[in-house]
Amino acid sequence: MQTPARYPRRLSRVVHVGAVAIGGESPVSIQSMTTTHTRRAAETLAQVRRLAAAGCDLVRVAVPALPDGEALPEIVAGSPVPIIADIHFSTALAMKALEAGAAKVRLNPGNMDDEDGLRKVLGLAARLGRPLRFGVNSGSVLAKRAGAKVAPQDLPALMVEMLMRWVRIAEAEGMPDLVLSAKASDVPTTIEAYRLLAEACDLPLHLGVTAAGPIDEARMRSGLVLGTLLSEGIGDTLRVSLTGDPIQEVLIGQEILAELGLRPHRGIRIVSCPTCGRCEVNLVSLVERLKAATRDIESPLTVAVMGCVVNGPGEAQEADVGLAAGKGHGVLFRRGEPVRKVPEADMLGALLEEVRAVAAEG
Amino acid sequence: MQTPARYPRRLSRVVHVGAVAIGGESPVSIQSMTTTHTRRAAETLAQVRRLAAAGCDLVRVAVPALPDGEALPEIVAGSPVPIIADIHFSTALAMKALEAGAAKVRLNPGNMDDEDGLRKVLGLAARLGRPLRFGVNSGSVLAKRAGAKVAPQDLPALMVEMLMRWVRIAEAEGMPDLVLSAKASDVPTTIEAYRLLAEACDLPLHLGVTAAGPIDEARMRSGLVLGTLLSEGIGDTLRVSLTGDPIQEVLIGQEILAELGLRPHRGIRIVSCPTCGRCEVNLVSLVERLKAATRDIESPLTVAVMGCVVNGPGEAQEADVGLAAGKGHGVLFRRGEPVRKVPEADMLGALLEEVRAVAAEG
Repeated sequence: MQTPARYPRRLSRVVHVGAVAIGGESPVSIQSMTTTHTRRAAETLAQVRRLAAAGCDLVRVAVPALPDGEALPEIVAGSPVPIIADIHFSTALAMKALEAGAAKVRLNPGNMDDEDGLRKVLGLAARLGRPLRFGVNSGSVLAKRAGAKVAPQDLPALMVEMLMRWVRIAEAEGMPDLVLSAKASDVPTTIEAYRLLAEACDLPLHLGVTAAGPIDEARMRSGLVLGTLLSEGIGDTLRVSLTGDPIQEVLIGQEILAELGLRPHRGIRIVSCPTCGRCEVNLVSLVERLKAATRDIESPLTVAVMGCVVNGPGEAQEADVGLAAGKGHGVLFRRGEPVRKVPEADMLGALLEEVRAVAAEG
Repeated sequence: MQTPARYPRRLSRVVHVGAVAIGGESPVSIQSMTTTHTRRAAETLAQVRRLAAAGCDLVRVAVPALPDGEALPEIVAGSPVPIIADIHFSTALAMKALEAGAAKVRLNPGNMDDEDGLRKVLGLAARLGRPLRFGVNSGSVLAKRAGAKVAPQDLPALMVEMLMRWVRIAEAEGMPDLVLSAKASDVPTTIEAYRLLAEACDLPLHLGVTAAGPIDEARMRSGLVLGTLLSEGIGDTLRVSLTGDPIQEVLIGQEILAELGLRPHRGIRIVSCPTCGRCEVNLVSLVERLKAATRDIESPLTVAVMGCVVNGPGEAQEADVGLAAGKGHGVLFRRGEPVRKVPEADMLGALLEEVRAVAAEG
């Protein structure tokens, strides 16, 4: 577990969402959002439980109308993780969600103009000790400006300005605990918005790309944005957004944090070379079969499978289990020590045996 | 095309590899490496041509032994892009590769100790006006230190130190044009190594993650590393490394640059929401079918498919073609203007028709 040395984590205030702390030195938490109609409480709760079982720390549900707000107490009572209500347009629904026990309420400054209503929500949240997230999205910011064309390079500052205006209103109304987000659907705009936001305040930040697209695109866009920001020490909680099963949002969030060294890997982490004119074994097939055969292993082990002597011995030494292949054979390593030489035909079997032995050691 | 405003590109020296410029204000170029035995010139050349056709700017070939070096003139003569020779251990092979016409030679300071030989290579490269890349990998650095355990946090500085020692030797030997790289197999180490390297010199940098693993892992690790560095203005050329078909390396490199706004997208870029309790249409299926049906389109168009009124109109206005869905219908947008309202059953057809019409406008 490490953050790159020269970019210490931005020090933010700590906010508690139920039992989950966001900000300060708390681990970066993972959020997702249900895709069910919230008013169907049982169906929504079933999805909340699936998300929690996959490792989701906080689950958000849309509350577009009163019947959805009325389902909240049942969902909150049955959920293993804190429930966040997602509110747009209506401050009355935000009041309802707080009263219904939502652990946190998200409001969108891009589509709420009722400032008196907002002041009431702020006051109630402060009294209840319940945090709010002010979250702007490029889409709603642009819709609000409809007619007045916004140049892409002006969007980040506009998003931050919209958030900070609300932060000043909150300061005048008892200052409930706040989390901020500024998501755009394209990568450079999102990075820039969060960099500006990180400088503008010390509130904890919720990271994400909005409308990030189908799973493959969303995985890349989220990796680019979250990777950059977290590598610069920015970000306290995250949501990967994708058009598809929200369980995948949780798994990708975990993957990003693990690759950045911010939490342990889930299962086997494979390090393998691209093969080149030096490689004398069928490494591509070996790696594919190794990956397929180790999906059940949950221990966070690094396994290096390398095709030649250039980087093979070094990577194999660094890994929990390593194989440095040569012509027709490979040298097997365990925790940095060479164990034995195996012929090509036995490589996969020997690797699997070694991986399972090391995994069993715990 | 933009870099995030507050991180201007690091200004590096310009190096010419054949007709391709690396560094300065040149576009970030994409490299890959053949997986064939280089000595089989025809087979290697066939792969070089496939890579070039996919948009690879520079192709590297492994030269592990003399017969591979002897195949270089045929490969260089037949290649549509500059050919780079990848050399480890042997300065004699590096001399051979330069004599054989390689447009650039990569040397690994982690596995070459023959300093007299190195000086000869440097002198020859300077005389021929041919650039060299000094490229260290975590694996070879660790192998060189075998026995002396290296703490992970010390690895970036060690890699940079190894490179800069060679740069000083190069300065004494006519200073050929140089490109540097410092790849590790884990993400934070790689980011940190390049950040240090960017500060240590003004030479152009070749970015990459070494031994990045199978395609899914490699895509994420490369996205995290290249995204972070390029968003900080660091990097002049890149290679995505993965265990699999090198064509995928080129496509992922292009994807990363496009998402960062550093080159046009190839084909349709889909912006779509994660769907939530607000969504009243089957957006997941709509987006999947849209993606499948537009794979042949090469125009770099953004298509937004949004499930509700929260961000729908804003994103749809921003896109080349947009659909903001409501209950049982959607509003279609073209270049920011609402075109017409379509019933749910006609959404896909109307979207495709609009996308093809806009693509045809060019």
